[in-house]
Amino acid sequence: MSKSPGEFELIARLTAKLRQSRRTILGPGDDCAILARPRAAQLFTIDSLVEGVHFDLRWGTAGALGARALTVNLSDIAAMGGVPRACVVNLAIRPGLDARFFDHLYAGLAGAADAAGVDLVGGNVTGADALAITIALLGEAGSSVLRRDAARPVDEIFVTGTVGDAALGWRILAGKQRARGAPRKFLVDRFLNPTARLKAGQRLARINPASAAIDISDGLWQDLGHVLERSGVGAEIEAGAIPLSPAYRAVAGDDLELALSGGEDYELLFCVRPGHSAAALTRRLGVPVRRIGKIIRGRGATLIGRNGARTKIAPRAGGWDQLRAQGPR
Amino acid sequence: MSKSPGEFELIARLTAKLRQSRRTILGPGDDCAILARPRAAQLFTIDSLVEGVHFDLRWGTAGALGARALTVNLSDIAAMGGVPRACVVNLAIRPGLDARFFDHLYAGLAGAADAAGVDLVGGNVTGADALAITIALLGEAGSSVLRRDAARPVDEIFVTGTVGDAALGWRILAGKQRARGAPRKFLVDRFLNPTARLKAGQRLARINPASAAIDISDGLWQDLGHVLERSGVGAEIEAGAIPLSPAYRAVAGDDLELALSGGEDYELLFCVRPGHSAAALTRRLGVPVRRIGKIIRGRGATLIGRNGARTKIAPRAGGWDQLRAQGPR
Repeated sequence: MSKSPGEFELIARLTAKLRQSRRTILGPGDDCAILARPRAAQLFTIDSLVEGVHFDLRWGTAGALGARALTVNLSDIAAMGGVPRACVVNLAIRPGLDARFFDHLYAGLAGAADAAGVDLVGGNVTGADALAITIALLGEAGSSVLRRDAARPVDEIFVTGTVGDAALGWRILAGKQRARGAPRKFLVDRFLNPTARLKAGQRLARINPASAAIDISDGLWQDLGHVLERSGVGAEIEAGAIPLSPAYRAVAGDDLELALSGGEDYELLFCVRPGHSAAALTRRLGVPVRRIGKIIRGRGATLIGRNGARTKIAPRAGGWDQLRAQGPR
Repeated sequence: MSKSPGEFELIARLTAKLRQSRRTILGPGDDCAILARPRAAQLFTIDSLVEGVHFDLRWGTAGALGARALTVNLSDIAAMGGVPRACVVNLAIRPGLDARFFDHLYAGLAGAADAAGVDLVGGNVTGADALAITIALLGEAGSSVLRRDAARPVDEIFVTGTVGDAALGWRILAGKQRARGAPRKFLVDRFLNPTARLKAGQRLARINPASAAIDISDGLWQDLGHVLERSGVGAEIEAGAIPLSPAYRAVAGDDLELALSGGEDYELLFCVRPGHSAAALTRRLGVPVRRIGKIIRGRGATLIGRNGARTKIAPRAGGWDQLRAQGPR
């Protein structure tokens, strides 16, 4: 194994190739970055990927990992309907990773930043026993913001895309699930190369009154639980309406376990006043949208089975945490 | 050992006790925090403390650790002459730490945030093998900003406070240096409970033309090197002028090794046009200030010994990195 690069070498590499918008007055290289005064209220979030917890280097490329580290943050901006603007990166590095690895990691990160219109304005490198990429991201709020606490009884609940794919991809990579061919490729890719629903979130924020929204990072049921708790309402979800991909069905059949509890899909779950069809929302948001249930008075969430059976499930009964407990650590 | 708290419990604890200014429209609990549009350009930085690299839990209290995690970030804002405003915290937690530990950690962090006028607006908790506290901090830039690239030949170089104390304190804690009584207490305290020179930085930023400045986190010589490199200038430093505390002298005598290479002091090094005496700057900035040398044309830094001998020392010959390599990892 070649010699690990030092902190200064890494910072120099990171700094060398960055493009900045005119919003960035001073990029990396000083004690702080300097950003021009923004034109609107700001969104601010932080998220982290830790080796052995969120990823295994044998599973994918360094470039994909760098991009994913930003995407999990972009998804938080998407869930508020905002526009991502600038980020700072903290890299905890461990021995045994060479300069070429970090070049690829940065290329992936910088590429994802470019594609999202985000300036990478600063960073910090520290030693550690495991690789960890922590990114803090600033965004600009739209004229209205999608909050978790805005759900009201009679709202209808929608989800973009399909759910459970990333969790199934993770189980395949971890050797806990057999799959092959096109379904395997699709599911693994959904885990390794997620997409943040930025445009969909921004378009959703233009619907009046403002919808409640959250990104599905911890699992549909758990993230729905966050919305219900913050809004002080309950929900009924129709099992038959949960959007499953053909690949999910090919590998897991009708089993909804991972679709409800598996995280890392980075789809949006949102609640809007009645009167919007899934077809109209699909056109408006530019992504497939499925109606999965409705907000009701009360607390907690009820799953209505295909046979009409009603099951009340606590938000934290499943969820990514539990899933992760069976994971690489 | 009691059961480690889960991520949700920790987030709930973190969220429960926070005070926010009116600049924070929405604090923790959603996908992002929402901040009111700031009144000026912004400063943005990120820094991290990692167990086994930057701290050892046997050395100090959880509260002091929480405060220090913010202080290392505050110091970056101080070095730009700005006013810190809002932060987000990423906490990587390992097994074996109980809820009481995190309560103390948060109390220390929240206390330091309160004292500095900083809103703690959001966070993320993840599993890991070592405890790590990563904070991203936003500040407001003053009418002028202290940058590393602003040093010009004939500028005089000053340092606030004393240097080398924290590195000596660290060596005492790590069992690499004997000391006792008041000097031991002072030096260890300088490592465990550093102060960010926020007011001094803000006052310095009002001097026209804007000074070059940096905070001494990696060691005086190395941080001076950053200023010289960014400004394209050289420097002469007088060994006899390096400000040493009585405690430093009591333990290390006249040995400048740690004063020049030891980091974590979080004092400010700055370069101003001639005409400001150390006494006048001490009054103006509200902290003890010592003149240690001057900026010259050329490259690199020369140390002028008490006997007049001139030694050119590469900025990275010493420094905290090297020191740390002898450290706990």
